[in-house]
Amino acid sequence: MWGIKLHHRAEISLSRQIFLSLKERILTGQMSQGEALPSTRELAKSLGVSRNTVCAAYDTLLTEGFLVSRQGAPTRVAQGLHIEHRQAFRTESLPTQRKKPLVWWDFKTGQPDLSHFPWQLWRQMLRQAAENLPADQLGYSGPKGYEPLCQEIARWLLRSRSMEVKAEDVFITAGATQALHLLTGLLYQEGQAFALESPSHPAIHTMAASKGYPLHWMPVDQQGADIGALTGKAISAVYVTPSHQFPLGGILPADRRAALIRLAVKNNFYIIEDDYDSEFRYSGSPVSPIYSMDCSQVVYVGTFSKTLFPALRLGFAVLPKALQAKWKHARTFTDVQNPILEQAALAEFLHKRKLDKHVRRMRQLYGEKRKLLLRSVKGAFGSSVHPWGDVSGLHLALQFPGREFGEQFVRDSRQAGIKAVPLARYCPSQTNHKDKLLLGYGHLSPGQILEGIKALRQLLEKTGLFSPA
Amino acid sequence: MWGIKLHHRAEISLSRQIFLSLKERILTGQMSQGEALPSTRELAKSLGVSRNTVCAAYDTLLTEGFLVSRQGAPTRVAQGLHIEHRQAFRTESLPTQRKKPLVWWDFKTGQPDLSHFPWQLWRQMLRQAAENLPADQLGYSGPKGYEPLCQEIARWLLRSRSMEVKAEDVFITAGATQALHLLTGLLYQEGQAFALESPSHPAIHTMAASKGYPLHWMPVDQQGADIGALTGKAISAVYVTPSHQFPLGGILPADRRAALIRLAVKNNFYIIEDDYDSEFRYSGSPVSPIYSMDCSQVVYVGTFSKTLFPALRLGFAVLPKALQAKWKHARTFTDVQNPILEQAALAEFLHKRKLDKHVRRMRQLYGEKRKLLLRSVKGAFGSSVHPWGDVSGLHLALQFPGREFGEQFVRDSRQAGIKAVPLARYCPSQTNHKDKLLLGYGHLSPGQILEGIKALRQLLEKTGLFSPA
Repeated sequence: MWGIKLHHRAEISLSRQIFLSLKERILTGQMSQGEALPSTRELAKSLGVSRNTVCAAYDTLLTEGFLVSRQGAPTRVAQGLHIEHRQAFRTESLPTQRKKPLVWWDFKTGQPDLSHFPWQLWRQMLRQAAENLPADQLGYSGPKGYEPLCQEIARWLLRSRSMEVKAEDVFITAGATQALHLLTGLLYQEGQAFALESPSHPAIHTMAASKGYPLHWMPVDQQGADIGALTGKAISAVYVTPSHQFPLGGILPADRRAALIRLAVKNNFYIIEDDYDSEFRYSGSPVSPIYSMDCSQVVYVGTFSKTLFPALRLGFAVLPKALQAKWKHARTFTDVQNPILEQAALAEFLHKRKLDKHVRRMRQLYGEKRKLLLRSVKGAFGSSVHPWGDVSGLHLALQFPGREFGEQFVRDSRQAGIKAVPLARYCPSQTNHKDKLLLGYGHLSPGQILEGIKALRQLLEKTGLFSPA
Repeated sequence: MWGIKLHHRAEISLSRQIFLSLKERILTGQMSQGEALPSTRELAKSLGVSRNTVCAAYDTLLTEGFLVSRQGAPTRVAQGLHIEHRQAFRTESLPTQRKKPLVWWDFKTGQPDLSHFPWQLWRQMLRQAAENLPADQLGYSGPKGYEPLCQEIARWLLRSRSMEVKAEDVFITAGATQALHLLTGLLYQEGQAFALESPSHPAIHTMAASKGYPLHWMPVDQQGADIGALTGKAISAVYVTPSHQFPLGGILPADRRAALIRLAVKNNFYIIEDDYDSEFRYSGSPVSPIYSMDCSQVVYVGTFSKTLFPALRLGFAVLPKALQAKWKHARTFTDVQNPILEQAALAEFLHKRKLDKHVRRMRQLYGEKRKLLLRSVKGAFGSSVHPWGDVSGLHLALQFPGREFGEQFVRDSRQAGIKAVPLARYCPSQTNHKDKLLLGYGHLSPGQILEGIKALRQLLEKTGLFSPA
């Protein structure tokens, strides 16, 4: 009847299959409005199923309003159900995407070395967290974050950066990205600019622009941002990476920090301090944050994506009191809170000082990779090429004086299987950083570093961007 | 010297303590710019520490620009560091918050019963997920979500709702809240309204209003939203809960669904279909979604907060192709992606059909609670009080004809230790739902339900909102 085909042993029950078939016929107009349906007995017989099966299908169609029934009259198709040009589930596939060329040497930035992550230990922490978590923590527990984790982060900041912070000011986030997403939203004021470093991570520029801010770029030199560029501007927030400028690597000197704070207090704007990798400083202790100089106007943003692993999605913001209520509101209506389990596991990991140990180990490893990279660069390009920045982090900016890296280089390098981003991509169009390339090395093996630099040298020679002296 | 006090065995090293003390004195102006520092030997002697310890502190101060040194001259304090009215870390506490009165009977909505969650089994899934996860999944894996989970969700939708969906259209989110946060952002068009049900969950209203939409309310009757209210309006998105209207409980009839789709196609707006709890239908099968009638204009939003637990923060959206690129961009700059571990554990949980079993079990449990609640209500208020909605979900709307629940009731109920929200709170000011109360019962024990209804009856009698016939 109506060509209904039933599949026994399918994932869907027989009555559900009958329901779907009838519904489909009604929506496509094959069964028209007012049309009477056969009795359940009749349909059951024709399909070779029990009457109960058909009754269940009819009941669902009645409940959802596809059918109407009146006492004593046959069940009929309801009014107004036909949809023209209906687009239901289609099985045809989309055209397959164009294949991207393979990347053999991938100097992308912000990638920690995951092969050395203490996965065994982390699993242990997860297990303990899962076993010890009280049942009420499975419910909604609020937008601030798991309180023991806030406390452990405050202690970690003291141990790792001599930074004094109260747990009550620590707000857990889904990575630094979420903190910046929330902050660019919270701090928006009509007509007031968002100031950021040129160059800086493209995400911050994208986020601020999408919120509607006019952008105000601060030029960056070897030491970091030029704070003087802010004088006399109407600004609602300034984004800086003072401990290790991304991507040029400078440490913002104390006098510029003090000038920034004085300006923020005077003009009542907030400083967003993104401390994305200062754990990995290979000489001396981590640089102390602006937050420690003055905490009234500073939001300090930290992440565990680099020290642990990116797919953990855990970061935090240390917030001035004046922003906390607004933040809680915004977070509640963004995604409510972080998942609980990773928070509890990280609290335990910090409590047992496992992060301290892991960071010490990785610092040594990354430091060795950095030395190797610098040696390879020197070997390949001699002393005509200058590395920028402090001895820290997971990436390096390389200056090739007199050269320019543009879109042609990007195409050529893609063809050669090399990913190395021209620094100018992270700047507005007017910039004096067109002579620099950005090389992330944290995730690369020693062999990949050696081979990659060799390949880069070949490419640059071939494309006329480097000629041996 | 300078009153520096060192603490042995503190969490911070001695050189770090010296660094902090000197920095503090420089910032507060106790040491003024240009002032010469004692030699490292001299300071080491006066503090009783090794000279290396002092050298390390001086090095950090030099690196960060607090000190300057010139060959042969003494090390001096740098220029421009003094910050007036500086606000550093303070130890005094904020005034403690006013204590909220205790809630004894909490009829809040959207709370699953966590005491019956198969925690043991979930831990096992987590362990397996942690053991089997390939290392590259610890890095950034993109904004769409863990692919095996997308596939399992497509299969789950087919099993649980006869809903045909392709895994490639499933996008994982941090709960339904995040899906709605992203969608209200993506679908915004200047001057076009956001349409929603009156009443509806306050979060959706807050989100849409914060994005700048004019709001357009659709009145809701026993069956759901009045789609006719949309005719002739400039609309960019319509939010509906067709399977179980929140909070009134109606099932949107097929003819209204068809009318909604016709309107969406004609006027080119999107329908956001929030299916927040249709698993818990206590009679017949779950209501089939609008998405199954026509998928071109419908975004289907689902969550595991009710079927598993809220602190899992996992939900999803099934997106039309036209929205997918924009969504990926928005998600990337919101929080990049979900944490990986829970995604992998849930994929396994679904693959092994454990959710099917858990939902079956909970459906029975919630169904019994619902019956008990209805019996208690009838016992306490007789037949003058009408429960609204379909036999499903974790909450109930109760109508007290001729009565009005306003802010005075909220204050009175708070004093009495009862939380039961007047439904009018979820509507714009003009509404005919002022005679209804909302009772969430999913999380309550049978004893709490019985006691809670008894307490509610006492309160209503005392405040004149109910008088026995």
